[in-house]
Amino acid sequence: MTDNGVQILLVEDNPKDVKLALHALSSHKLANQVEVARDGEEALDFIFCRGEHAHRNFNLQPQLVLLDLKLPKVDGLEVLKSIKDDARTKAIPVVILTASKEERDLVESYRLGVNAYIQKPVDFDQFRQIVEQVGMFWLVVNQAPPAAAYAPPREQK
Amino acid sequence: MTDNGVQILLVEDNPKDVKLALHALSSHKLANQVEVARDGEEALDFIFCRGEHAHRNFNLQPQLVLLDLKLPKVDGLEVLKSIKDDARTKAIPVVILTASKEERDLVESYRLGVNAYIQKPVDFDQFRQIVEQVGMFWLVVNQAPPAAAYAPPREQK
Repeated sequence: MTDNGVQILLVEDNPKDVKLALHALSSHKLANQVEVARDGEEALDFIFCRGEHAHRNFNLQPQLVLLDLKLPKVDGLEVLKSIKDDARTKAIPVVILTASKEERDLVESYRLGVNAYIQKPVDFDQFRQIVEQVGMFWLVVNQAPPAAAYAPPREQK
Repeated sequence: MTDNGVQILLVEDNPKDVKLALHALSSHKLANQVEVARDGEEALDFIFCRGEHAHRNFNLQPQLVLLDLKLPKVDGLEVLKSIKDDARTKAIPVVILTASKEERDLVESYRLGVNAYIQKPVDFDQFRQIVEQVGMFWLVVNQAPPAAAYAPPREQK
């Protein structure tokens, strides 16, 4: 497992979706360093350097957390809240990728500070395309937060 | 001026960049409804329905605010802060598009809750491509906040 330099933390419990996403990202050379968390607790352990990730470098965060909502142990909204409520991790770009069609999930995600929200297409090809566009925007176009964004603010309030 | 159903609020004082961005967006049919604000005050007047935008519908917000940092009257970071600090407008997706290479601008933008941060390419063609990719991701792939996201939260804290 690579603890440093992870590009995407993929939080997804459906093995099919994991396989398809990894394939889409690697075949376009968009991301080779993808960490997969199968539930919300694993995701938070990774981000906050706990449990088996206790020795990870906190200031090296993924360029993108691609987060499902319906997850075992800790659900996606709770993971999002934990990341965005903590000044040390608020900068991490989090994109929801969900099968949910509930408006309240969409509204609540934005209220909690999600960076973007994508409805998971049911079609195989469309899913692949969406993952490619996500990889293109967040790993190529977007400028990820530098390590300084993960240090506790000093001069600010 | 279209006050309803604006897709992008482009906040940019450089007329060349405005022209180029509008051309890139319209030629790919990504956005026909683009509102242009030439300074930070105009941008905030639009978002908060003040001044000449006093009769705009507050619950109809742009799907994306594409925001320059160096702006007359009110600078980009101040505009970002005003949008993200207000529970009624926090959900509006804001993407910084700037020529700034200062790490502190990048860090501060993420601290204030920016959705994405893009460094403006100096090359003409690259600038066009970036604007197209921004339009594709934020108007096609991303699910914009619904009107309910702009109502003051009632049941929540």
